[in-house]
Amino acid sequence: MRLPDTFERHRAEVDAELKSVVAKWHSSLYDMMRYHFGWSDEKGNPQPGSTGKGLRSTLCLLACEVAGGEYHRALPAAAALELVHNFSLVHDDIQDDDRERRHRPTVWSIWGKPQAINVGTAMRLLASMALLRLSECGVPLEKQSKVRYLIDEASLRLIEGQYLDISYEGRFDIRVGDYLDMINRKTAALIACSLETGALLGTEDKRLIHGLRKIGWNLGLAFQIRDDILGIWGNHEETGKPLGSDIRHKKKSFPIVYALERAEGVLREELLTVYQNGICEDSGVAAVLRILDAVEAKANAQKMTEMYCYEARQTVDKLPLSPAAKGELRELIHFVAGRDF
Amino acid sequence: MRLPDTFERHRAEVDAELKSVVAKWHSSLYDMMRYHFGWSDEKGNPQPGSTGKGLRSTLCLLACEVAGGEYHRALPAAAALELVHNFSLVHDDIQDDDRERRHRPTVWSIWGKPQAINVGTAMRLLASMALLRLSECGVPLEKQSKVRYLIDEASLRLIEGQYLDISYEGRFDIRVGDYLDMINRKTAALIACSLETGALLGTEDKRLIHGLRKIGWNLGLAFQIRDDILGIWGNHEETGKPLGSDIRHKKKSFPIVYALERAEGVLREELLTVYQNGICEDSGVAAVLRILDAVEAKANAQKMTEMYCYEARQTVDKLPLSPAAKGELRELIHFVAGRDF
Repeated sequence: MRLPDTFERHRAEVDAELKSVVAKWHSSLYDMMRYHFGWSDEKGNPQPGSTGKGLRSTLCLLACEVAGGEYHRALPAAAALELVHNFSLVHDDIQDDDRERRHRPTVWSIWGKPQAINVGTAMRLLASMALLRLSECGVPLEKQSKVRYLIDEASLRLIEGQYLDISYEGRFDIRVGDYLDMINRKTAALIACSLETGALLGTEDKRLIHGLRKIGWNLGLAFQIRDDILGIWGNHEETGKPLGSDIRHKKKSFPIVYALERAEGVLREELLTVYQNGICEDSGVAAVLRILDAVEAKANAQKMTEMYCYEARQTVDKLPLSPAAKGELRELIHFVAGRDF
Repeated sequence: MRLPDTFERHRAEVDAELKSVVAKWHSSLYDMMRYHFGWSDEKGNPQPGSTGKGLRSTLCLLACEVAGGEYHRALPAAAALELVHNFSLVHDDIQDDDRERRHRPTVWSIWGKPQAINVGTAMRLLASMALLRLSECGVPLEKQSKVRYLIDEASLRLIEGQYLDISYEGRFDIRVGDYLDMINRKTAALIACSLETGALLGTEDKRLIHGLRKIGWNLGLAFQIRDDILGIWGNHEETGKPLGSDIRHKKKSFPIVYALERAEGVLREELLTVYQNGICEDSGVAAVLRILDAVEAKANAQKMTEMYCYEARQTVDKLPLSPAAKGELRELIHFVAGRDF
């Protein structure tokens, strides 16, 4: 499955917007940011970089367009959303001790955790700075404040989700409901915010804005559960994530939480024993994989992904949008449900 | 030397404002914040807490008042400034591996570094949330945006300073000029911002706003150099900081940088040798103290502190303020120059 064209359409402009936000500030601190974004290598030499899929900026610009707006107006918000997402990745890598992301060493693994903390927090602040250009785009102050609030709130939710995610690590009483509470905040909040922000910059129609936000929530949940599948069964070459890392980190990702809820008797005891005796060895990872197989965790995770995608599609169907707009949204939802990277 | 009354005047209101900002959000994440502020113990039980001196909120409210404004209008900004300052403390403790602050275990030493990273970043986001109440205080949107920008910018400067501070740790070619660049960002930016923000909320007089900001810059530099003195020669009981910790962390605080610049021949070699052989033992700290004595680093640091305080006083003298206002500002400057805590 390849990336829908929607992702490519404005990529160059989002990259340019992002680069110009970072370029306004002068300190070597920002060189580490450029490295993270893939614009330079660790010595600071420019390189043709990939910033990741750009899901959040894509959703923001698409929402602005399908709502009838001119996507240029939403470019500063799209850049801000990417900065928020990437701030969370930089901190996440520190918190999870992950040495690799997108096939490259993580910021902390090169410059140390103290500096990587600075890089992440500074990125989140640059997100606010990115929004300053909304004025140039003719967005009235009141709407600017609304956009700012939405992005700040989603960022707080994201940190709350990150807090839950870490606090679940040592626990084995986590239920699917707890898991959903966590990913609502950690992932869905920012994805819903991306669509809502874009819509808000494209229309005054509250029903449309609300509808696009709702699509975002469902898409966000689907995205995370699919991510959890890839975090266990994904191809390292395609995802860029270390193999079995979710299991090793004792992450309460959907398949694990599902197994904790469904596995009974001997199976459940084996699962708990493996985790309690330390999961670092390959044999532990293999044992967990066997148990996940036994309870059909992968198939059930995919079922959940598709359920949320179905919900998102239902909302698309009901919204007063052009057939072309609906087609593009549906293609995006389809990608989220089946992506391999 | 005791805390001037100015610090006490609005303390209860700033605390109430801060508490109400945090109270709007629901997650155990915020309990760790309450602990940091001293409002609760680590189990979450309320306790009569001290939030620190409250220098930044005090300066903000005082600037608003002396500029002719009603301090209530500036309370949301005062709370935001304390949140920014405290976010930096929480991250700073992680970065410096400090287990104690204000005579209590630091957030990370109780809940671990991954969660403490979340607490710090969430605090910085709550600073933005605190500013939402400026609307209620009748501050027009345009002025709100200006305040937001000033606080965001100062936060970025603070992180840039923190970046420099950490990057100086392994270096011995740091000059007084490099040091001043670092503390300009790390400390003076937010203190200048506190006075400027308060002034901006109290008057339209640009000269006055600019003057109060200038006082803030000088006061900030003086504050940090005095802090550096206390970081080496201060009384642990009064400062709440671990003894000799600046030396052990190889911090390029003013006295050390001064010694690196001034010490010659054998003295300089001894200083470098001690640092290169590891400074962890008490004998290493004692050797550094001897060298600092030999170059009169303490007296010279105090001279610098007083020079910046003199500059601040000069600006006070020139501003069109009431004698009472000038008196209060002078008392505050006098405190910064001679404080023991």
